[in-house]
Amino acid sequence: MKKNYMLGNKTAVKIYNQIKDLPIIDYHCHLSPQMIYEDKPFTNIAEIWLGGDHYKWRLMRTVGINEDEITGDTPWDTKFINFASAIEFSPENPLYHWSHMELSKYFGIDTPLNSKNAKDILAKANEHIKATKMSPRKLIKDSKVECICTTDDVIDDLKYHKLIAEDKTFDVKVLPSFRVDNLLLVERENYPEYLAKLSEMSGVEIKDYKSFKVAIENRLDFFVEMGCRVTDTGLAYFPDRISSDTVCAKTFKKILSRDELKKEEYLGFLGNVYVFLGKLYKERNLIMQWHLASDRNINTALYKRLGLDCGVDCMGDAISGPALFTMLDAINENSGLPKTIVYTLTPANAEQIGTITSAFPNVCCGAAWWFCDHKRGIEHEIQVIAENSSLGSFYGMLTDSRSFLSYARHDYFRRILCNKIGEWVEKGEYDKDSAVELAARISYKNIKRDIG
Amino acid sequence: MKKNYMLGNKTAVKIYNQIKDLPIIDYHCHLSPQMIYEDKPFTNIAEIWLGGDHYKWRLMRTVGINEDEITGDTPWDTKFINFASAIEFSPENPLYHWSHMELSKYFGIDTPLNSKNAKDILAKANEHIKATKMSPRKLIKDSKVECICTTDDVIDDLKYHKLIAEDKTFDVKVLPSFRVDNLLLVERENYPEYLAKLSEMSGVEIKDYKSFKVAIENRLDFFVEMGCRVTDTGLAYFPDRISSDTVCAKTFKKILSRDELKKEEYLGFLGNVYVFLGKLYKERNLIMQWHLASDRNINTALYKRLGLDCGVDCMGDAISGPALFTMLDAINENSGLPKTIVYTLTPANAEQIGTITSAFPNVCCGAAWWFCDHKRGIEHEIQVIAENSSLGSFYGMLTDSRSFLSYARHDYFRRILCNKIGEWVEKGEYDKDSAVELAARISYKNIKRDIG
Amino acid sequence: MKKNYMLGNKTAVKIYNQIKDLPIIDYHCHLSPQMIYEDKPFTNIAEIWLGGDHYKWRLMRTVGINEDEITGDTPWDTKFINFASAIEFSPENPLYHWSHMELSKYFGIDTPLNSKNAKDILAKANEHIKATKMSPRKLIKDSKVECICTTDDVIDDLKYHKLIAEDKTFDVKVLPSFRVDNLLLVERENYPEYLAKLSEMSGVEIKDYKSFKVAIENRLDFFVEMGCRVTDTGLAYFPDRISSDTVCAKTFKKILSRDELKKEEYLGFLGNVYVFLGKLYKERNLIMQWHLASDRNINTALYKRLGLDCGVDCMGDAISGPALFTMLDAINENSGLPKTIVYTLTPANAEQIGTITSAFPNVCCGAAWWFCDHKRGIEHEIQVIAENSSLGSFYGMLTDSRSFLSYARHDYFRRILCNKIGEWVEKGEYDKDSAVELAARISYKNIKRDIG
Repeated sequence: MKKNYMLGNKTAVKIYNQIKDLPIIDYHCHLSPQMIYEDKPFTNIAEIWLGGDHYKWRLMRTVGINEDEITGDTPWDTKFINFASAIEFSPENPLYHWSHMELSKYFGIDTPLNSKNAKDILAKANEHIKATKMSPRKLIKDSKVECICTTDDVIDDLKYHKLIAEDKTFDVKVLPSFRVDNLLLVERENYPEYLAKLSEMSGVEIKDYKSFKVAIENRLDFFVEMGCRVTDTGLAYFPDRISSDTVCAKTFKKILSRDELKKEEYLGFLGNVYVFLGKLYKERNLIMQWHLASDRNINTALYKRLGLDCGVDCMGDAISGPALFTMLDAINENSGLPKTIVYTLTPANAEQIGTITSAFPNVCCGAAWWFCDHKRGIEHEIQVIAENSSLGSFYGMLTDSRSFLSYARHDYFRRILCNKIGEWVEKGEYDKDSAVELAARISYKNIKRDIG
Repeated sequence: MKKNYMLGNKTAVKIYNQIKDLPIIDYHCHLSPQMIYEDKPFTNIAEIWLGGDHYKWRLMRTVGINEDEITGDTPWDTKFINFASAIEFSPENPLYHWSHMELSKYFGIDTPLNSKNAKDILAKANEHIKATKMSPRKLIKDSKVECICTTDDVIDDLKYHKLIAEDKTFDVKVLPSFRVDNLLLVERENYPEYLAKLSEMSGVEIKDYKSFKVAIENRLDFFVEMGCRVTDTGLAYFPDRISSDTVCAKTFKKILSRDELKKEEYLGFLGNVYVFLGKLYKERNLIMQWHLASDRNINTALYKRLGLDCGVDCMGDAISGPALFTMLDAINENSGLPKTIVYTLTPANAEQIGTITSAFPNVCCGAAWWFCDHKRGIEHEIQVIAENSSLGSFYGMLTDSRSFLSYARHDYFRRILCNKIGEWVEKGEYDKDSAVELAARISYKNIKRDIG
Repeated sequence: MKKNYMLGNKTAVKIYNQIKDLPIIDYHCHLSPQMIYEDKPFTNIAEIWLGGDHYKWRLMRTVGINEDEITGDTPWDTKFINFASAIEFSPENPLYHWSHMELSKYFGIDTPLNSKNAKDILAKANEHIKATKMSPRKLIKDSKVECICTTDDVIDDLKYHKLIAEDKTFDVKVLPSFRVDNLLLVERENYPEYLAKLSEMSGVEIKDYKSFKVAIENRLDFFVEMGCRVTDTGLAYFPDRISSDTVCAKTFKKILSRDELKKEEYLGFLGNVYVFLGKLYKERNLIMQWHLASDRNINTALYKRLGLDCGVDCMGDAISGPALFTMLDAINENSGLPKTIVYTLTPANAEQIGTITSAFPNVCCGAAWWFCDHKRGIEHEIQVIAENSSLGSFYGMLTDSRSFLSYARHDYFRRILCNKIGEWVEKGEYDKDSAVELAARISYKNIKRDIG
């Protein structure tokens, strides 16, 4: 990895050098607060990389490696060599870029990984881990992270967030985010247990739609008390209709009695809840995140074998534009819109979503997400935002990751962003005197201002 | 703005220099014939830019400027400074390019606009307006415009078109275009008044579907008499079925008696009207324009406050390919197709539409439209046309604008086009000896041949 | 055509020079085995180019040439000049690239074709045909083709495949592919005759769904005996549901009695057949190809005049992601998936399909297909595969063509591929030491390994 990796022009290098050391606010990720609190040192890069990263499992499957040698009992070093053999012929896959950036940034290794040198690199990396006493907190501090927003279930007790906040030796903010997916997947088998737990945690007996809403508000207030600034939802469905409270009261009765819901009934219920949540968030000045168009667990065999998050998810069909703007408009009419970030997993209608968000106050497009967060995907999202709204208002990158090494992706993003801006300046299509401030706003200042 | 703005290679510069002074035929715009006729001098660039341009309002909202300071009673100079602060951090937004091109081309100002120099630039631009006695006709003549096709309602009396045609001091053709949207929005509250007016203007008593069609034909003949060469429709819906005349006679009865129509009923009616219109246009050798996939007025609060065209529109969902080709085929079978230009607001299925248009005689894709008319959007549309049909048959740019400064967009387009062609030539992928003729055809000759 | 055509950087040239002479395995095409067997010499480039190539007819129509002068009785030399006048102003159309590559590669002509030099070029090319005794087999051998997979109907007797295999003077493998489209278009008027022929060829009396399946298996075994390695389907529909065998038995009764099927009924039947075929293919280690999202014969007038494959087809609407992954999952659950290649004609959801294929073992995206096989389309497909799976596992190019000159498209693809890889290497984003092997795998080794 060369010093000017991804920086294809001189102006890009200049801009990058002035913003690369800005702190990181990772406003959406899946890091474990427990791991941050406990801060156990790492021992093996193979385990860090391949213990739970379904992106990497997926790539290994694609090149034909047997499942046992990916997620089975095979020793870590074999798995690492397997991964190296997969990465070697995978240019432009984001894992190619990320893996090499992580090797360079966190392990001081700048050799391209392949099946021949994998064993050596594994040994060197593991020595480095030991020598530097690499641990979650160390990686966070070394990466200049200032604030982390984890993803937490509505019924979570947020124990580790509390412990981290009380720990005076660690000054990085670790804030909970209010993730409502499980709350809204009302047809799951274990939903009654979920509701029981929600009753318990909120102290509100949930006997109808009204008390359900009181319980939600109660939990949200607890999250806010614990520092929550950001909320999230990422269902496979997006409501294309909004039922009235009266209708929803009936729907909720059916949910309580485990009657099957018609699809339209469920979507109408969801629409009503979204409007309700929008109001709660607006009142508390929270950021509302919508993650659109993902389908999960599409390979039954692997899902049965490995469970959730095993690398068998995909982009969903594009969400209908009218469904999206009708929902935004309804929230806007009801309570005004909170700060809202809309992410789409499919680039198919990213431009359309760009034009929809720009028709509402406080609504903007999010960073390239998941299957889109490769170089071309990030560039595409930058263009979509630039063309349809104002790039200078963009919140920039987040990792969406479960790995402490993923902060390299913020560097990845900053390089790609500076490269783009540099290109525009060098072509005479953007003012060089505004370029650094633009990059700084996107990389840090905007989210800093709104997360606080 | 440098001299070679957007021209990234030497061949591009050479080609551009040989086509840049070709006249402009703006075959689709929303200029006011009254303003052209009256030719009142301008006084204030802030008013020209921010008095009615919803593109600019939208951008200002995106960066968080309060609505009052955009469309409210705030003084023009404050609004101008607000706009400058928005534009400063909006690279790649088409407004960034257009605003700077307009400043350069019409005001001789080549400094990048920002919040600090906005006041100065405002003063300089306004002096320039005064000094040059800038007016609609002056801008039109200075821009080498040869012909303007405005957009006019079926029931318009075309008074100003007549007056302009009679004015021997002004030799630019200003032709009406036959826009049928209001004619087809049969469920609008004031549709009975619209029909009454149509009866009056056509001299045909509209009592059934048959007389409705006679009235339309009557109006079209009047438009043709007044020089009309181009027709247009841009509904949010596109018919996916075609009802028979018998069914439409019943549907029209319901329209007259204000009965509610089912969606399928309305779409079938629309399909029948499209086939009918296609025949009328074919017989009169008119150009038929279809503008697909737009949704309008999606933010109720702003629509209520400001009305139509206030910057809260968006790309619609992609039109179904089979609906589009079924309609084209039906017209082709019925009467043969008139020269037809298909524009889509969503790039999501631009390639598909490219392959559909190329399967029919006389049908072609239109220029990048509205939310697509930024640099990347124009380049994309050029590629789509080049790959799926023959670029040399493309009609090129139109402004679609309400502003007399928008002729800069023709220059914008010509630069982007020449840059593309230049690239192909320099890579050895296109014959340099055909390059200038190709650019000239697209920039002027094709539309000249067909508008006459 | 310059020597380094499409090769924009030095690394690209280096890589290309090391892989350009690899043999060609054209694993999907529409060449006539009869023409290969008979090997009649060609006489006229105009006839080769314009006798049956609907891509070229389509382009000629687009520029406004009269149908008679394209597909009518007009002499070949006039048609050739017409085509030249169309190509002259059609940069970036794949025909522009292919035609010039064919002129260069097979006729030694490196002058850009235009209406003025068309007559000369025609004469030179025809002299060359005579002088070199150009014929199907000669073109195949000169192009270093090692293996050809033709496209053959389930009821084909494969007579010419047998004759070619027995001809010791010709060592290129010409293998049949099992194409099931006609088998599945059960509502066509002549379907009873098709079934009768299927009974005859298979020796199985088809009286119900069960015997229908036996007949299919019988035919497939015959194809395998004749060397078949690849199967294919390319219907306009893709099943979004899977009926049970019991339901299909009823559906098949209706098919036999020529009762009309409901759309859902047909799709459910199709789904069941796909699962059945998937198992047959898996058991025989065949490659299963799915060609998605095409619509055909959309211009009735030209279809009536010229029949199938006359240049009036188009991209279909995007296939729903859930329909696609549900079908893949069902086959995977039932029998395991055979090697499966998914091609989509619309680029609209290529990325989505990329993420779906990568969630299943043995499934990958195919090369850019038909309306997508221009330079930008090929580059796009390379990116989609690289970003969502592993580029090194890609099967690379096929011609999908009816013309013996089309092997130039393999060269086209290899140049575009090497140019891309070279770019990545020169930017420091890919390891130069893996680059040649990567290109070789995609151009030849992968398909060689799996075709055998």
